[in-house]
Amino acid sequence: MLHTPVYNKRNEVIATSVTNLDVHDISRVARTYGVSRFFLVHPQTSQQELVHDMIRYWQQGFGSTYNPDRKDALSVLEVVAGLDEARQRVVELEGQPPLTVVTDARVYPGSVSYQEVRARIKRDEAPYLVLFGTGWGLTKDVVERADLILHPIEPASDYNHLSVRSAVAIILDRLAGESWWREP
Amino acid sequence: MLHTPVYNKRNEVIATSVTNLDVHDISRVARTYGVSRFFLVHPQTSQQELVHDMIRYWQQGFGSTYNPDRKDALSVLEVVAGLDEARQRVVELEGQPPLTVVTDARVYPGSVSYQEVRARIKRDEAPYLVLFGTGWGLTKDVVERADLILHPIEPASDYNHLSVRSAVAIILDRLAGESWWREP
Repeated sequence: MLHTPVYNKRNEVIATSVTNLDVHDISRVARTYGVSRFFLVHPQTSQQELVHDMIRYWQQGFGSTYNPDRKDALSVLEVVAGLDEARQRVVELEGQPPLTVVTDARVYPGSVSYQEVRARIKRDEAPYLVLFGTGWGLTKDVVERADLILHPIEPASDYNHLSVRSAVAIILDRLAGESWWREP
Repeated sequence: MLHTPVYNKRNEVIATSVTNLDVHDISRVARTYGVSRFFLVHPQTSQQELVHDMIRYWQQGFGSTYNPDRKDALSVLEVVAGLDEARQRVVELEGQPPLTVVTDARVYPGSVSYQEVRARIKRDEAPYLVLFGTGWGLTKDVVERADLILHPIEPASDYNHLSVRSAVAIILDRLAGESWWREP
C-alpha cells in the first residue's frame, strides 16, 4: 500500500497520512489470504514511527495478550520508505525480484483479467507484488511501469468509489480466494 | 449491519458501538454494488443520533460540497433500531418481506454456496436482506433463524479473522460483482 506517489482530489502528487484502520484491516486480509508480506510504503520517518508504535503495542504491549489475532495479523506487516525498498526486500526474502501488479479505475491497453493473474500467481515461481494506492489513487507513472495492469472492478452501478480497504479485500479475494464460483 | 445481538470475546451478548469508518466503507461498497439500502441496526438513540449527525454533515453540511461522492454513498444508508424494523422497512419499500441471508465462520447443515445465492438473487423477485454482525459475530439464534446460511469464506491459510468491513466487501463482490471468473 503506497502512501506516495498518489494523487489528491486536485490531481496533485502528494503523500497521504497513515490510517490506523487500514493497517489493521489490510494486515488481517493479507494474513487471511496467505500473503507473505504486506508492505506499507511511507517516506516520512514520523509516519513510519507511528506504525512501528502500533506494531509494538499489538506485538509486545497490552494488545498482544488482549487480542492475539491482531498480533498474528500484524506479523505480515513491514514498513518501507518507497516502492524500490519493497522490491529490494522481496529480492532478499524470495531470491528474485517481484512482478508488479496494479489496478486502476481506468482501462489500459493490454490490461489483464483477474482469472489470468490468478492463474499466473498459482503457476509461476516468481513472487508477485500487488500495488494499491491511497488518496485519489496511484500516479499514472506507477501504473504504467507495473508489469501487469488488472482490469478495474466493474460494478453494475454508476458508482465506483471504494475505499482502499475494500478494494484490497475484493482484489485479494479474486486473486487468492477459494474457487467458490461456477460458470453461469 | 447489526450492532446487536452480537457476541463479545467472552461469548456474552452485547451491543457494540458505531464505528465511523464502517458507516462510510459499507455505504460505499453497498452503493458500488447496487444495493438498495444499507440498514445500520443499533437500539440506542444516542448511537443512532451519532450516525444521523454524520449523515447530516456529508449530506447537507460542509462534506456535501467537499466530497459529493460520500453524499451519494450515504444516500443508501438508513438507521433502524432492530432487525424487525429493517424487515418492516423492506416491506414498505419493496411490497414484500425480504429473504434473509447470513454468513458465519461455522459451517451449518444445509448451508448454501455463493453461486446459488447469487443465482437466486438474480432470478427471484423477492428482496434479499444480507446480515452482518459486528463484534465477535451474530448470535447463533439470529444465524439459525435466517432463511439462507452462506458457506463461510474459506481462505487457504490457517487464519480467518476479517473485519466486518472486509467481509462485507468480499461477500457483496461474490454475490453481486461482475462475472470475472472462468472455470479453472
